Amino acid sequence: MTTSGLFDELFASAAMVDVFSDRARVQGVLDFEAALARAEAADGVIPQAAAEVIASCCRAEAFDFAALARGAAVAGNLAIPLLLALTAAVESADTTASRFVHFGATSQDALDTGLVLQLQRALGLVEKDLGHLSSLLAALSRKHQRTPMLGRTWLQPAPPVTFGMKAAGWLDAVERDRDRLEQLKPRLLVVQFGGAVGTLASLGTHGLSVATHVARQLHLTVPALPWHAARDRIAETGATLAVLVGTLGKLARDVALLMQAEVGEASEPRAAGRGGSSTMPHKQNPVGSAAILSAAARVPQLVATLLAAMPQEHERGLGGWHAEWEVVPEIFRLTSGALKHAIEIAEGLEVDAGRMQKNLAATHGVVLAEPVALALAHQVGRATAQELVERACRRADSAREPLREALRRDPEVSSRLSEAELDRLCDPEKYLGLSEIWVERVLKALARAHRQGES
Amino acid sequence: MTTSGLFDELFASAAMVDVFSDRARVQGVLDFEAALARAEAADGVIPQAAAEVIASCCRAEAFDFAALARGAAVAGNLAIPLLLALTAAVESADTTASRFVHFGATSQDALDTGLVLQLQRALGLVEKDLGHLSSLLAALSRKHQRTPMLGRTWLQPAPPVTFGMKAAGWLDAVERDRDRLEQLKPRLLVVQFGGAVGTLASLGTHGLSVATHVARQLHLTVPALPWHAARDRIAETGATLAVLVGTLGKLARDVALLMQAEVGEASEPRAAGRGGSSTMPHKQNPVGSAAILSAAARVPQLVATLLAAMPQEHERGLGGWHAEWEVVPEIFRLTSGALKHAIEIAEGLEVDAGRMQKNLAATHGVVLAEPVALALAHQVGRATAQELVERACRRADSAREPLREALRRDPEVSSRLSEAELDRLCDPEKYLGLSEIWVERVLKALARAHRQGES
Amino acid sequence: MTTSGLFDELFASAAMVDVFSDRARVQGVLDFEAALARAEAADGVIPQAAAEVIASCCRAEAFDFAALARGAAVAGNLAIPLLLALTAAVESADTTASRFVHFGATSQDALDTGLVLQLQRALGLVEKDLGHLSSLLAALSRKHQRTPMLGRTWLQPAPPVTFGMKAAGWLDAVERDRDRLEQLKPRLLVVQFGGAVGTLASLGTHGLSVATHVARQLHLTVPALPWHAARDRIAETGATLAVLVGTLGKLARDVALLMQAEVGEASEPRAAGRGGSSTMPHKQNPVGSAAILSAAARVPQLVATLLAAMPQEHERGLGGWHAEWEVVPEIFRLTSGALKHAIEIAEGLEVDAGRMQKNLAATHGVVLAEPVALALAHQVGRATAQELVERACRRADSAREPLREALRRDPEVSSRLSEAELDRLCDPEKYLGLSEIWVERVLKALARAHRQGES
Amino acid sequence: MTTSGLFDELFASAAMVDVFSDRARVQGVLDFEAALARAEAADGVIPQAAAEVIASCCRAEAFDFAALARGAAVAGNLAIPLLLALTAAVESADTTASRFVHFGATSQDALDTGLVLQLQRALGLVEKDLGHLSSLLAALSRKHQRTPMLGRTWLQPAPPVTFGMKAAGWLDAVERDRDRLEQLKPRLLVVQFGGAVGTLASLGTHGLSVATHVARQLHLTVPALPWHAARDRIAETGATLAVLVGTLGKLARDVALLMQAEVGEASEPRAAGRGGSSTMPHKQNPVGSAAILSAAARVPQLVATLLAAMPQEHERGLGGWHAEWEVVPEIFRLTSGALKHAIEIAEGLEVDAGRMQKNLAATHGVVLAEPVALALAHQVGRATAQELVERACRRADSAREPLREALRRDPEVSSRLSEAELDRLCDPEKYLGLSEIWVERVLKALARAHRQGES
Repeated sequence: MTTSGLFDELFASAAMVDVFSDRARVQGVLDFEAALARAEAADGVIPQAAAEVIASCCRAEAFDFAALARGAAVAGNLAIPLLLALTAAVESADTTASRFVHFGATSQDALDTGLVLQLQRALGLVEKDLGHLSSLLAALSRKHQRTPMLGRTWLQPAPPVTFGMKAAGWLDAVERDRDRLEQLKPRLLVVQFGGAVGTLASLGTHGLSVATHVARQLHLTVPALPWHAARDRIAETGATLAVLVGTLGKLARDVALLMQAEVGEASEPRAAGRGGSSTMPHKQNPVGSAAILSAAARVPQLVATLLAAMPQEHERGLGGWHAEWEVVPEIFRLTSGALKHAIEIAEGLEVDAGRMQKNLAATHGVVLAEPVALALAHQVGRATAQELVERACRRADSAREPLREALRRDPEVSSRLSEAELDRLCDPEKYLGLSEIWVERVLKALARAHRQGES
Repeated sequence: MTTSGLFDELFASAAMVDVFSDRARVQGVLDFEAALARAEAADGVIPQAAAEVIASCCRAEAFDFAALARGAAVAGNLAIPLLLALTAAVESADTTASRFVHFGATSQDALDTGLVLQLQRALGLVEKDLGHLSSLLAALSRKHQRTPMLGRTWLQPAPPVTFGMKAAGWLDAVERDRDRLEQLKPRLLVVQFGGAVGTLASLGTHGLSVATHVARQLHLTVPALPWHAARDRIAETGATLAVLVGTLGKLARDVALLMQAEVGEASEPRAAGRGGSSTMPHKQNPVGSAAILSAAARVPQLVATLLAAMPQEHERGLGGWHAEWEVVPEIFRLTSGALKHAIEIAEGLEVDAGRMQKNLAATHGVVLAEPVALALAHQVGRATAQELVERACRRADSAREPLREALRRDPEVSSRLSEAELDRLCDPEKYLGLSEIWVERVLKALARAHRQGES
Repeated sequence: MTTSGLFDELFASAAMVDVFSDRARVQGVLDFEAALARAEAADGVIPQAAAEVIASCCRAEAFDFAALARGAAVAGNLAIPLLLALTAAVESADTTASRFVHFGATSQDALDTGLVLQLQRALGLVEKDLGHLSSLLAALSRKHQRTPMLGRTWLQPAPPVTFGMKAAGWLDAVERDRDRLEQLKPRLLVVQFGGAVGTLASLGTHGLSVATHVARQLHLTVPALPWHAARDRIAETGATLAVLVGTLGKLARDVALLMQAEVGEASEPRAAGRGGSSTMPHKQNPVGSAAILSAAARVPQLVATLLAAMPQEHERGLGGWHAEWEVVPEIFRLTSGALKHAIEIAEGLEVDAGRMQKNLAATHGVVLAEPVALALAHQVGRATAQELVERACRRADSAREPLREALRRDPEVSSRLSEAELDRLCDPEKYLGLSEIWVERVLKALARAHRQGES
Repeated sequence: MTTSGLFDELFASAAMVDVFSDRARVQGVLDFEAALARAEAADGVIPQAAAEVIASCCRAEAFDFAALARGAAVAGNLAIPLLLALTAAVESADTTASRFVHFGATSQDALDTGLVLQLQRALGLVEKDLGHLSSLLAALSRKHQRTPMLGRTWLQPAPPVTFGMKAAGWLDAVERDRDRLEQLKPRLLVVQFGGAVGTLASLGTHGLSVATHVARQLHLTVPALPWHAARDRIAETGATLAVLVGTLGKLARDVALLMQAEVGEASEPRAAGRGGSSTMPHKQNPVGSAAILSAAARVPQLVATLLAAMPQEHERGLGGWHAEWEVVPEIFRLTSGALKHAIEIAEGLEVDAGRMQKNLAATHGVVLAEPVALALAHQVGRATAQELVERACRRADSAREPLREALRRDPEVSSRLSEAELDRLCDPEKYLGLSEIWVERVLKALARAHRQGES
């Protein structure tokens, strides 16, 4: 997984590709090394002058990436060749300073803290996108709070809902995803700093103080103890993203289904070339939904890799740790792409309220069997009520007439429910229940979260 | 996945098998139905007398499970045949009451809320076990706070750590798992109640009030809106358990490796028959570790199933929802078994501090190359220091003598480091760094968490 | 995973549940032990009389399963308590014979060979079902070889296909699955027999001869060498089933989508109660498709578990092997259920050719843009042709008139394509290409396979 | 996933990175287009001159990859912008020819056939590496056919095996992997060619003939019918690779464990810088094993993605197909890296037969309890025999003396087994059973396979 490729625009956001570029990975390690040198200088472990020279050499641009790649293959990790190259660079600037590069730390300290720095930026991007998506979905929910449409369960017609309620369901899940990210951050955003085996013995009595200085510089905290072989933070991060991508996948599934020509109730935004076909000029494919669903099919397994890699050996493992290196970036990459497409969809979704009405009508009202059955049940019991209604449904279906008519013509029904009652019972707009209230509740919770975020 | 089988003792705890037995699943649905009837009676939606009759019939024992299984295959879910059977049972007690069974709800309301009730109990078991495990690991950490042992990275010898620090690393991760569960619960422990499509239209103006009553009875809360097709809570629950199982897997991996005859530093508790072999009388197999590692290999993929099943269709999906039914119980089942074994191991772990000393000594001190190199680096620079130390290591290795001797005999070293300095640098007990402090930090955090839990 | 539960009828076939019942697992081990005793007697390793007594005790019914479960938890595998119990049973019949129970073998020999015996039966069931499904799909393909319907790509309308071709696509994949199973069997159906570490040292010079006798009795072969820690056969078996379940999932996805009320082109067979709803009398849910899709969501991850468990330690591993014990049966269980439902669907699928016609017509012919564009391209180049056709499509769409009309009224088109040409180009039945030939090819390949199977 | 990055040397082979580079992907599509044009010219569907111009433009180097990436994001696949660009390129060479670019085909025809062409090359690389690995493992097996070492089960000491037998176990599995690949190829190496929906209606009566010409040019065959939404071939390919990677993971697991300092029986080849540590000069890390184990942890989940993506919608799916695009290359990339490392290990593995002897001796012979117990069992029955031997094992263990001595001093044993018998029973080299014969069998099967490959 490197910095830019044929599918980076389709499956990722440019900003996230940048956060997880080869360059950014190298820079993450170097940022740790610079912070380490400065912290050690502040603590009197190494000379201040050495720290300055070291820090000045910590620019990714200065390194030969092809050589680093070759070195990583020999050493088994990236930090070793990178630190050799950094030491050489420092040495050519100041021989003495080169003695103090990476002083007392281990490769994994640099690699893991570097990764956490990337994750810090990456989570910032995700949160920003989620905030944006949230606002767009809130607007959709509000706008369509009273737009009735067919409910569908098991891909079969069901009583009516509103499109606003559907969008509020997406939004509500997005808000839970934001809460999860908020709760994750204090656990995740910590330095990795323990030296060869986690004891920081190399720093004598300075260990904890240097750790604290390093963390402060990098806007991280110091964990209870190093976590070289305790990878729950990484696995949890992946899992949290996967839940989010699953939420976006639910949105995409709904949109792709609503966009079927036979349904036609909503459509991804149209734009020149978007979703076109090489052979079918009339086609508009749900490109955004496809990309999101693809992410929702891939991220879960990537997370399984992180989870299954957790039982790492002793003080630092082999194989399991390596499995994380490309998988974590890939999870963020796919999440960023899914978010980008979800935002585009939420922003430009074309909702066809007229078609929603028409599709509701096309069921001949059989999806309103429930209220009729409930009304009848009060008089004849549920079993008989259901039988009466099922019979009417069958008649409506075969005669292709509204259920209301079939009911009206059935003396066992019409003797019990007046025309006015039947009219009311068979009006989908009268059978939307709490849909409006649910939307209100979701929007209120969102407003509350905003206020908390601000305070 | 049913209630009791050949591997339930090996891979699960009896209590968890009980929580997810067929009986308990049926009872979960029935508990919802009883609560629903009472809530509707309290709200005047159905007669109080009917509610009492319905509630009195809600005992799993009264149902024919083979018939339910057949019915589930025809209907596609368990609730439909169960509700038919419940209605029949109520009817034979009181014809009128039977009209009010499951009034206004949908199958998934009952199935999901029933599941949440099972999860409530299941999480209680997990938390109890985690508390127990925590205490045991705390005791181990404290006891071995100063027990030195070889650190090992990439399965190769490294500078010394203490066994207490290793155990504190396990404990620290367990504590994060407890935090995650704590944060999960408010999201998860909510009723599912929305009727056919989530609008609760069937209950007219009573919907929210009935929902509130149902939730109160079941010690759950009412979510912002129903979540029939928003499955993030379920997937998150699985993922949280998977992270925990990964933590236990890390412990098990370490124990299995330490228990190798060639290492012999720790051993699962011995007991008659435990880990025996059908052909090798001398054998003691790490049975607990094997069971835990097996769980750590299986749970991640089960979670991937839940995550990948999230994009469910419209108001209620097909296939994705079904995929959860057996997978969620299986995750808890395996987690409970892993916890049981981890507790047994933490309780009875036989730590051989003498063998730890011996294994440290067997490295001839080359794992203390680091402090020597660091000490020399101050005088000759890091590169030269490393060369000198590597040379001494090779000599020590080929002569099978302590590194200390090889260093002492090398004039380039002995001219720079005195005998006393060499003695100190080559003493593993002098090179344990922050190991004791880390343990303190973990134990303090634990104590803090306890106080918070109590207050 | 035990023998019978609430979802066994929905997610499995009864026959497969039986093959992987606890009883059958125990019997598999016992069948190995009986065959071993007889083979050893035939080879003069143990007395013939002892073999007879041992074999006579090898009936699963005679054992206390609860005790076995407890014993498995202590020993870490099922064979150890089972062999103790078997030895006790033999002893009470004939003290001498009890010395020769399990002579020279190891637990895993018995467990793995027992599993292979279960797999042999299980594959037989799968193959029988696949043969049945194949015939049903062949009949569907033949019957609807000329039934035109809308093709759909990315869930959007596309040029026409035939329903027969769609069914032939399902069938063609099923036939490949049968080929894979055929190729798998010689690799899989081998004994596991190596004693403690695979050398069969316990049997001195008799090892290979006994192995051969054991294999012959069980209708298996002797592999090049024992495979206690080489688990590729097991993982491959799971993967082969997973590909098959994916094929069935494709069929189920198509059926569930075709069964949407808005599409209505095909429907799972109707039957009393099948796919009903607790609240919506009019509902018919695609129960079979849901069960299949659920299997297709679960089996892939179960296979990932088997694959990831392959790197097992040394002569016999820990954790990885244990992970297989419940996962392999679960894969077969879900496969059997998916097959059962696929057969039911293929047998009773209600195909609505009229609705197919209607849905084709409802596109106003824009799905035939391709042939028109191709015809125009010969005269004006592809780019211009596409522009002309896209313009006509937009007009047809907004005017809700057939594309044919829109084209006819466009002078740039009508000057190039005659009315007759337009009629032909816009007739879906004239644009079915090789659909009939593809079906023929698939059916011919099937007939060829049958002849080979018979010869 | 693009062409070259920081981990490509560690986790992949250069040749495989090249096969799945962005350039190669584009070239795969273009190779299809060139073959298509020539096939259509041969069939008289398009002018011969046009075909030549088109084919001459089908060079990946000529395209702007950044523009393709942007175009893919809008169109939802790579082929659409690539075909637009190809058409433009052809047009600037010959306006007429541009009409015939991609004539009658659909994007997925080009993308899938392009992928198959990449897979053809990729499988060639895998097979070549497997052949090499096979020879190296055969040499190791032969060389160490009689090198005794401790067998280990559950990571605990067990009776002796030979290192040759261990290597033969690796080899035997590799040979099965080669068989699987051989059986896969005829299914996989087929063209995808069906036009918009698989009917090839766009080519009128020429469809099958053009398909045949295309396939012949590309050294592929024509399948029974197009397979746009039947993805079993792709999933099967991934699964076959995953089984192979699991086999390599088994080898790597063994090597990493044998290389532990406490075991020290085998070691990855040493080379300057290989497996070094940034802080520990003495370290040599098992870099190759780590990389292989990392692949073995990742590939299974990638395969689960392919399997779970199989249920694709109707004639061409959305999301599921997209999920394959980066996953298939990633599987091959990781497989190639694992193979590279396995070859390096097999080639340079340092086997320490002396240490193997020493470790065997260090068990004090308790791993030979089995033959002693077997010998005693003939006289006193198995239960008593086991008791006697267990007692002796405990004594040997606590007295740190050889089992042989403990047995000799036990009158109940020494009265039944003579000194000579005890000597023989306690000699590991006398207890290697069929180990030599197993190696022979594996090598003979290999020789047989070679002869078949040649003939």
